[in-house]
Amino acid sequence: MTAQALQMGDEGHNRNRAGTSLLLRELLPALIELEEPSADTAAVARFIAGNDHFFLNMTMPASKACADAARDIDRSSIVVAMARNGTEFGIRLSGTGDRWFTGPSGMIDGLYLPGFGPEDANPDIGDSTITETVGLGGFAMAAAPAIVRVVGGGAEDALAATRSMYDISWGESRSYQIPQLGFRGTPFGIDVREVVHTRVLPFVNTGIAHREPGVGQIGAGVVKPPMEAFVKAVRALAGL
Amino acid sequence: MTAQALQMGDEGHNRNRAGTSLLLRELLPALIELEEPSADTAAVARFIAGNDHFFLNMTMPASKACADAARDIDRSSIVVAMARNGTEFGIRLSGTGDRWFTGPSGMIDGLYLPGFGPEDANPDIGDSTITETVGLGGFAMAAAPAIVRVVGGGAEDALAATRSMYDISWGESRSYQIPQLGFRGTPFGIDVREVVHTRVLPFVNTGIAHREPGVGQIGAGVVKPPMEAFVKAVRALAGL
Repeated sequence: MTAQALQMGDEGHNRNRAGTSLLLRELLPALIELEEPSADTAAVARFIAGNDHFFLNMTMPASKACADAARDIDRSSIVVAMARNGTEFGIRLSGTGDRWFTGPSGMIDGLYLPGFGPEDANPDIGDSTITETVGLGGFAMAAAPAIVRVVGGGAEDALAATRSMYDISWGESRSYQIPQLGFRGTPFGIDVREVVHTRVLPFVNTGIAHREPGVGQIGAGVVKPPMEAFVKAVRALAGL
Repeated sequence: MTAQALQMGDEGHNRNRAGTSLLLRELLPALIELEEPSADTAAVARFIAGNDHFFLNMTMPASKACADAARDIDRSSIVVAMARNGTEFGIRLSGTGDRWFTGPSGMIDGLYLPGFGPEDANPDIGDSTITETVGLGGFAMAAAPAIVRVVGGGAEDALAATRSMYDISWGESRSYQIPQLGFRGTPFGIDVREVVHTRVLPFVNTGIAHREPGVGQIGAGVVKPPMEAFVKAVRALAGL
């Protein structure tokens, strides 16, 4: 379903309109057959349909399961998790077990919902960068020209963003393909050695959270992880 | 909804996966609240979800209603209908009332479903070219890179197809925008004078029907209308 959504203008992190629609299309017939009160079933349908990001709730655990399959490979320099807690941005490598390598969380450069601005924003926060970890989100930006306004620039910039991620990736996804790039697989598996060598940081599309708890998402944009985290990871891998 | 679907990889004639998903997403909550037997409601949901082209049943009458609004404008050279009956391809102009200008139906160049080939195909047939008449289908090809395989070529060819249609169109749609072209409106309103002047024929994406009744669609591809129909229309408009 995620692979299909990439052919329908989603990149799987900041745009999930196609994925949410496809999920609802699959779920609803079975949901109807549960024979629950129709007001409840309709409320469930409206709840899911009411938030284009609903599908991200499926994509994140699916991405985590995918990345976990690459954990604990001896000496591997591939990133198996990226996450932020609002203060720090951390990564884990396949070859370094449970250790986190961190640096300061950045501020997201993007567009705000009406009534909000940069002064309301929290530094980068959340686990959704697990999507970029498996070749979605910023790595699949070329698939989602409709949100280039959110992240700045035009369709060409979206193509360029994905293309630049091949430079720091170990391979290409066999599942996630981009029609705009002749069905080339998305850049897959960030190699920390290449990040440090090329100085190209992972391209992350993400939501902007309010700095006060409970308000929720107030915008969306682009952020770069701190290079420091990648340098620390390479040094740890080298036993320095 | 059609405008949204163009930002989700549909072009509105040969690809309708996003439109069908968005329609179902809107319809189903209300359908559930009708309190019909849940087996019936689930069957309806599965029927719609089971055919990615379902949305074309909405797009065609919507396109016809749109084109009809431009009928009967004195001396207007804008095409207000294109249709095929399996033998002839015909067009109507705004300025020439109920008259049809026709030429022979072409054979569609495309891909076939397994078990079928060109020998099974009927010449171009059906009313679905009303979508191209209002700036969808082949005119919105740039929006649908995922089906360039069906129509031959790559994403660049899809962009080129849409761009070439601006040469024969009177304006640009305010509703149907293409993210891949910086949200430019699709080419809108075919001007027969420009078709004859530039020798550029409308680019039509369409289904291939079996030559025997009842078999239905056996493939999809690209076809060009006969120039003869456009020449006849220009001559009629000029009173020749």
